[in-house]
Amino acid sequence: MTHEIAVIPGDGIGQEVTPAAVEVLEALEIDFEFVEADAGDAVLEETGEALPQETYDLAASADATLFGAAGDTAADVILPLREAVDSFVNIRPAKAYPGIDAVRPKTDLVFLRENTEGVYAGHEDRLTQDVSTLTRVVTESASARLAEFACDYVADGEHDGFSIVHKANVMRETDGLFRDTVKRVADENGVETDQVLMDAFATRVCLDPEQFDVVVCPNLAGDVLSDLAAGLVGGLGLLPSANVGPDRALFEPVHGTAPDIAGQGVANPAATIISAAMLLEYLGYDAESEAVHAAVEDTLENGPRTPDLGGDASTADVTEAIVDRL
Amino acid sequence: MTHEIAVIPGDGIGQEVTPAAVEVLEALEIDFEFVEADAGDAVLEETGEALPQETYDLAASADATLFGAAGDTAADVILPLREAVDSFVNIRPAKAYPGIDAVRPKTDLVFLRENTEGVYAGHEDRLTQDVSTLTRVVTESASARLAEFACDYVADGEHDGFSIVHKANVMRETDGLFRDTVKRVADENGVETDQVLMDAFATRVCLDPEQFDVVVCPNLAGDVLSDLAAGLVGGLGLLPSANVGPDRALFEPVHGTAPDIAGQGVANPAATIISAAMLLEYLGYDAESEAVHAAVEDTLENGPRTPDLGGDASTADVTEAIVDRL
Ligand SMILES: CC(C)[C@H](C(=O)O)[C@@H](O)C(=O)O
Ligand SMILES: CC(C)[C@H](C(=O)O)[C@@H](O)C(=O)O
Repeated sequence: MTHEIAVIPGDGIGQEVTPAAVEVLEALEIDFEFVEADAGDAVLEETGEALPQETYDLAASADATLFGAAGDTAADVILPLREAVDSFVNIRPAKAYPGIDAVRPKTDLVFLRENTEGVYAGHEDRLTQDVSTLTRVVTESASARLAEFACDYVADGEHDGFSIVHKANVMRETDGLFRDTVKRVADENGVETDQVLMDAFATRVCLDPEQFDVVVCPNLAGDVLSDLAAGLVGGLGLLPSANVGPDRALFEPVHGTAPDIAGQGVANPAATIISAAMLLEYLGYDAESEAVHAAVEDTLENGPRTPDLGGDASTADVTEAIVDRL
Repeated sequence: MTHEIAVIPGDGIGQEVTPAAVEVLEALEIDFEFVEADAGDAVLEETGEALPQETYDLAASADATLFGAAGDTAADVILPLREAVDSFVNIRPAKAYPGIDAVRPKTDLVFLRENTEGVYAGHEDRLTQDVSTLTRVVTESASARLAEFACDYVADGEHDGFSIVHKANVMRETDGLFRDTVKRVADENGVETDQVLMDAFATRVCLDPEQFDVVVCPNLAGDVLSDLAAGLVGGLGLLPSANVGPDRALFEPVHGTAPDIAGQGVANPAATIISAAMLLEYLGYDAESEAVHAAVEDTLENGPRTPDLGGDASTADVTEAIVDRL
């Protein structure tokens, strides 16, 4: 069965790392049909729209989407694209790889971030000259859907439940609803949980990242705390992510467009290629997914490496090395 | 001129570290009148109120307040106390001390956290069985007041301006107003600023804390990011804070009640004693403040040390050593 894969490179190094990941996927000789589309600063300049309707429609109909990065228009591109795939969870692994310089080399976390609401629901008003407001929305249904997903996620025997991270001591009604709903669903599924305030989590994950494993949290908490974890593992350069919906999903590196090195052919394609490995797993190609993960890890450990990791290889060199190791 | 100092030890190790800090203040033989009051879990159990009206009134009228910690009632105690002193800024230094094991030994940051609004404005509703909302409030006036304070703060010649940390790419109206107002006030005062998204800040501060110095941010961002910085410097045990209003201020260690070690007489009093040094500076006793800072730093570096720092000294031993070094 052919799978249609939307490919949206975007801006900056997105134009370099996305084709690299497609090259890896093509090397697996799976029956994928790749369809490319535009989004980001460049297409905004050309057409007046950062996310053309065709691109939105493509993501909303393809089996899976691979997205690179967008510049100043990042929020205008990625937030609607998450909606296009009806993504209710953002999966963000943050793992320190052997051989890579990390602040906390034993970090191995997965964030399951609520992906539809919280402050991202985006209802804002300027009530008076002085006063602006934002309505943060938390629903029982979105919290329960995320919790069901989290319960499935940890049912593989490799995890002892998950941590619920929240700020319900201040946001009592909204994060209280989030915390209580996630806990109730976990209890119903016989999944163990513990509860950690998001500020305490920030301290504790620096001091001892090994005490955490899978972290379930609201949207903005997931944004900030997964980026914190990225700092602990040595930067955004290696972090993949998946935006999963009921019928389709979108995969993207956590890094941005890296304007300082864009166009030089030296961007590290690892995060996008690991995102492609998550795409493979999502579509059921488990063996291929594992092969890509292993090839990337072997390459990170033994080289060649791009300059961000202290090497002098190009994007093409690293991609070729990964393909050779498949 | 006598200054009235409200002393609110609270729960757990608050009962041990707060008297230690008072002992240090008393050793300076300044004309302080200490008035003690109750707050926290224990007084809730006794009287049905975590923050008795007398305690609130005392903080609202004393020249300065020294607060220890509260247990499960922390939010019910500290949020009204911040209001009692009309505190519009929470000053949170996060500095790695020589001789103390830190994840990032070169960290030396000060957070100036907005202390009255954001999600802490606390307007929440359960609209339906499914939907809860919280109204996040950002005002131009509170942002400007914080920015004026920040401009004064960096005018001592030791700082090159400050960083404005926000999430205005998602919270466009509210954090946009915050960012633009703080920037405008800084420009008017000839103070240099840069702007960093809060998620990017979380990554970058782990990778290279030395790139930041003074950080100005909304309430919840300040809560989480200063706790992150606490993790980088080796834990909450050494972090002081000041809640400053126009006419009075409240000083507290960032740590909690530490129920695991409470009552054993081994709590580290450093954070509370450094908070007392901030109190001295606030009341204009600059030389005394510097003497306390120096005595604490000397003691942290050369001992004696409490068990959290690998020593076996008691709270009383450490306090005595600090007093001896004054
Ligand atoms: C670009 C921005 C809107 C986005 C977010 O806040 O979710 C980004 O930070 C991310 O985490 O993917
Ligand atoms: C106890 C809690 C309400 C408080 C806060 O969120 O401000 C605490 O975390 C702090 O930072 O002092």
